[in-house]
Amino acid sequence: MLHRVADALVANEQQIMEENDVEEARGKIADALLQRLIMKPQKIAQLAQGIRAIAAEDEPIRRVLSRIEVADGLVLEKQTAPIGVLLIIFEARPDALPQIASLALRSGNGLLLKGGKEAARSNAALHKVIVDAIGALGPDLIALVTSRDEIADLLKLDDVIDLVIPRGGNELVSHIQANTKIPVLGHADGICHIYVDKAADLDKALKIVADAKADYPAACNAVETVLVHEALGDAGVDALLQALRAVGAEVHAGERLAAARPALGLPAAPAARHEYSSLGVTLETVEALQQAIDHIHAYGSGHTESIITEDAAAADAFLLGVDSACVFHNASTRFSDGFRFGLGAEVGISTSRIHARGPVGVEGLLTSKWVMRGSGQVVAKDTGVNYTFKKLPTS
Amino acid sequence: MLHRVADALVANEQQIMEENDVEEARGKIADALLQRLIMKPQKIAQLAQGIRAIAAEDEPIRRVLSRIEVADGLVLEKQTAPIGVLLIIFEARPDALPQIASLALRSGNGLLLKGGKEAARSNAALHKVIVDAIGALGPDLIALVTSRDEIADLLKLDDVIDLVIPRGGNELVSHIQANTKIPVLGHADGICHIYVDKAADLDKALKIVADAKADYPAACNAVETVLVHEALGDAGVDALLQALRAVGAEVHAGERLAAARPALGLPAAPAARHEYSSLGVTLETVEALQQAIDHIHAYGSGHTESIITEDAAAADAFLLGVDSACVFHNASTRFSDGFRFGLGAEVGISTSRIHARGPVGVEGLLTSKWVMRGSGQVVAKDTGVNYTFKKLPTS
Repeated sequence: MLHRVADALVANEQQIMEENDVEEARGKIADALLQRLIMKPQKIAQLAQGIRAIAAEDEPIRRVLSRIEVADGLVLEKQTAPIGVLLIIFEARPDALPQIASLALRSGNGLLLKGGKEAARSNAALHKVIVDAIGALGPDLIALVTSRDEIADLLKLDDVIDLVIPRGGNELVSHIQANTKIPVLGHADGICHIYVDKAADLDKALKIVADAKADYPAACNAVETVLVHEALGDAGVDALLQALRAVGAEVHAGERLAAARPALGLPAAPAARHEYSSLGVTLETVEALQQAIDHIHAYGSGHTESIITEDAAAADAFLLGVDSACVFHNASTRFSDGFRFGLGAEVGISTSRIHARGPVGVEGLLTSKWVMRGSGQVVAKDTGVNYTFKKLPTS
Repeated sequence: MLHRVADALVANEQQIMEENDVEEARGKIADALLQRLIMKPQKIAQLAQGIRAIAAEDEPIRRVLSRIEVADGLVLEKQTAPIGVLLIIFEARPDALPQIASLALRSGNGLLLKGGKEAARSNAALHKVIVDAIGALGPDLIALVTSRDEIADLLKLDDVIDLVIPRGGNELVSHIQANTKIPVLGHADGICHIYVDKAADLDKALKIVADAKADYPAACNAVETVLVHEALGDAGVDALLQALRAVGAEVHAGERLAAARPALGLPAAPAARHEYSSLGVTLETVEALQQAIDHIHAYGSGHTESIITEDAAAADAFLLGVDSACVFHNASTRFSDGFRFGLGAEVGISTSRIHARGPVGVEGLLTSKWVMRGSGQVVAKDTGVNYTFKKLPTS
């Protein structure tokens, strides 16, 4: 089914490119958003390649997660199973549609897609190509909701929709979280931190900080606050400032840095907790690793944080102590992504602590099911069998 | 820490038995409930044994669930991590307190316990023994909330409480689900089914059905509806009726059975979807396996269902086709339980499709965390590294 979808996307390339929303949107939306609406042959080929990669993975459903002999002739397995029906709400980004549809198909879930109106034509064209490629089951498996008014009604259907995944800005996600009883997987904020430790290799720090801010400033995994150990001194701060400015970043000072180095003349950070979603970034000093961890817990969003250090003990303390979905050592926060994590694709990144956390691929769209096979066993006040609880291999 | 708790329970056995609520409750609550309030030396010894079994398990935190090489020198792990703060609300059942406290300790979670007022003295005594045994950290790790009014306030704390687990009747659970934005793990109903297939070994069926109803009728995993393939004929129905009556069950007829066998004079089932929580049970006929599955999906609660058959293909169709937390073949629904599943103990049984499903032990109280270790890698529009995505062993 997935191979048919991949083939159909390539075969219908011309039509998909024609049915887009770029011309109508030109001048009405930001250029960055406009770029996302364009469907090029290269983008379509990449999508098809991604879908074939998802198809090539091992079958994810009915995978045995654990198997034990409960008693003689009584075997219990924990197996993966589809969650049920997913509602995915996404803003103007038509290439998300085939990716999400493929992950839902692979995980055996039914899908309700609610796309942004800015990409209405693209979404309709892509949905039609995919549903037609699936065949008779297509319309029952993947539905596209187009009317704007229907969101509020969909969010009330907690008896038939099992999970909502909003893909969009803070406002969209917060609104959905506040207005439904259906579990919501996703993140409202991406306030990522990099902590440059006193034992940092400064060259690595400069390279990573510049990448984390400038590679894609509007992404949720871009860095918003850089915390610098004060032992690195003025020279350390100056080097980071220069590296950030070299990639076009607009550096703001946190309270402690502003007080310590007023002569730098940096604008004040709008708040200790602030997502710029642009080339803006806050630079702040800390006296110790623990102060960095405390700062992250006080002002972060539990998304992705990275420590730059050559001190293995400091790295381990950070990786253990920081309570975020993703914690990195000597790597850019931009790696926090389903494709870069080897998941093939992602439906989104979750900062929730329940169910899936971090980038969510096929695995995060599965639940589990306990399957027990016996030959007439009864409990009889726990005298019916002799419990053995013997672990068995899962394959 | 867990061993100290187990030792302390045994050492304070006398005090725990004295500080109970049995005398005050006598005459005010049902006998079955009263039995639960009694703390005997045997019960305390079993609790201590269970806690030592939990302590003997492999360390559950920071367990590596997957490990891949993302690129040369860039390794990503998915590790287990505590969820955070759990709120567990339970009705009169003081022995649940040490079990739940031990599972929370083992999984590294903070715990707010809200016990039923019927067991207030027992709960306070058990809580004190456990917190004292833990030592200085005790009061910060496990708090006991005693005031009745505080529940509504606790349910508002979605910024600090990560998961609510209600242990109690349908009313309590439904009330909590309707009145909090915190994720709720548990089940409101336990409407379990047994389907006696046309290829059933009738002796096994009789034994299993009797056990599933009478072993502990008030339990959530007791059977409420027995579906019989009509190919088993009047003789099959009569045998099941006799087996159920022999253990004291009060058998009600479903609509089709009532129409087919009015002469049996069975009282009508109150509804196709009904939890007796007593020795009441509904007997109903079906024309086919698929009708049984459809009946379960229409009227069940997704808890536990069992098929009795010697036909391997029918068993597999049932185990795959029935969308419940636990699906069994030729075994009593009463096996659906954390201890009997080899989890050591359970905080409850979840019919939710998100996060943990079925009996929830230590594993269900964990989330995951992505840990990436590099040496200065940057994304640089995905040209910064050569992605390898090589699976590595987890140990």
